[in-house]
Amino acid sequence: MTAALAGSAQGGRAELSDLKVIAFDVFGTVVDWHTGIAAEAERLLPGVDGSAFALAWRAGYQPAMKSVMERMAGEAGHSGGFTLLDELHMSILERVLHDFGQTDIDPAIKRELNRAWHRLPAWPDAVAGLTRLKKKYIICTLSNGNIGLLTEMAKGAGLPWDCVLSAEVFKAYKPDPRTYLGVAAVFDVAPGHVMLAAAHHDDLAAARACGLKTGYIERPSEFGGARPKDVSPQPDNSLHARDIGALADLLGC
Amino acid sequence: MTAALAGSAQGGRAELSDLKVIAFDVFGTVVDWHTGIAAEAERLLPGVDGSAFALAWRAGYQPAMKSVMERMAGEAGHSGGFTLLDELHMSILERVLHDFGQTDIDPAIKRELNRAWHRLPAWPDAVAGLTRLKKKYIICTLSNGNIGLLTEMAKGAGLPWDCVLSAEVFKAYKPDPRTYLGVAAVFDVAPGHVMLAAAHHDDLAAARACGLKTGYIERPSEFGGARPKDVSPQPDNSLHARDIGALADLLGC
Repeated sequence: MTAALAGSAQGGRAELSDLKVIAFDVFGTVVDWHTGIAAEAERLLPGVDGSAFALAWRAGYQPAMKSVMERMAGEAGHSGGFTLLDELHMSILERVLHDFGQTDIDPAIKRELNRAWHRLPAWPDAVAGLTRLKKKYIICTLSNGNIGLLTEMAKGAGLPWDCVLSAEVFKAYKPDPRTYLGVAAVFDVAPGHVMLAAAHHDDLAAARACGLKTGYIERPSEFGGARPKDVSPQPDNSLHARDIGALADLLGC
Repeated sequence: MTAALAGSAQGGRAELSDLKVIAFDVFGTVVDWHTGIAAEAERLLPGVDGSAFALAWRAGYQPAMKSVMERMAGEAGHSGGFTLLDELHMSILERVLHDFGQTDIDPAIKRELNRAWHRLPAWPDAVAGLTRLKKKYIICTLSNGNIGLLTEMAKGAGLPWDCVLSAEVFKAYKPDPRTYLGVAAVFDVAPGHVMLAAAHHDDLAAARACGLKTGYIERPSEFGGARPKDVSPQPDNSLHARDIGALADLLGC
């Protein structure tokens, strides 16, 4: 249950005394998508380089969401054309399979592979860290994953969320302000009573611009052990923690 | 962990072999709103008849939702005017306070009383029954309560939901088909793989019309011990159970 501090508060710790909700980014922050997708790709597509396949699939994620949001912004209704991440994942998968020369894959195999995102393994510290934080705070997801994906993932990995919030609830993907402000609205608190915890500085910067507190979680091997990520602290974050256990330490849980 | 059977399968038990999700109505089915609201009314409004106050407040619930849905149906956007139950509860509360001659109540007391719906006690069988069902099924709420209300209630009462679904997610209240079909869509299953469990036959009938399975939960004292409710079985329900533990028995959990 103890986790060494890898970083320290970047200032503003006193301001955290009225924190009520911690919303977690999920892919990369709470679960290890690279390991999970690479293993499932190698299992279902014999001979494929699982790590390269996982990286290519994930690389299609931001452009796919951007495309949906641009289309929605061009429409009157704004939320009518919202697309679930399961569907975006499938359309990206089709292209990646083509790029990897996997042109004759059974549709049932494609569906099973697409649902690998529902079965991702938690980082080793996640369940214990979240369990500690849950005693003091409301803990929820704030992910671009759809609710079904996040719920099945939580059930499989034992993630003890108080509730599952998602782009699907707000009909907008991060970094749209509606997602960060939506968490505060759901719990009827000011944005400053919510912290986003994430392994991605761009996500945290967008949350901070909405008035949320931010907690950076180091995940140096998010892209695989062979591609270590720079996890240097950035001074604007409220907290910087090696992992979720260390975040619980910093918050006195 | 054992709960005696109070009813029996009303047919179609074999059809339940492919059940994947059980969505629970919450007020009356999982939590005891009458006891909870009566106690909080008596605590915060000395001299008031808590039971009568709770019944009057709850009686305003269906008309308030109907009014919002009629207004939304008259608008172009359809979901733009959706109102959270917390807000509906507050506007009903203002009227009930007036009717009970409580015309000089501090706004902070009103807010605390309104949040009594977030603090409702679970029926004694709920936590153990849900914990058993959760091992075999995805268990979620399907309530007209807002997400924040349901999440805080779950945290207070220890309700182990896999996820919190609500009218707020679907921007429509039960018995609108979008809510029942929305649960199936969230989990990407056919409506027949979802059961609604509820203590109210009208809710169950609306779910059944959408193709869901239905489980009736007896709550004879939903309106207080002095006003026993008819909990006779209705043959169209897939299952009839005395409580949530009995539902787990019937489903072999």
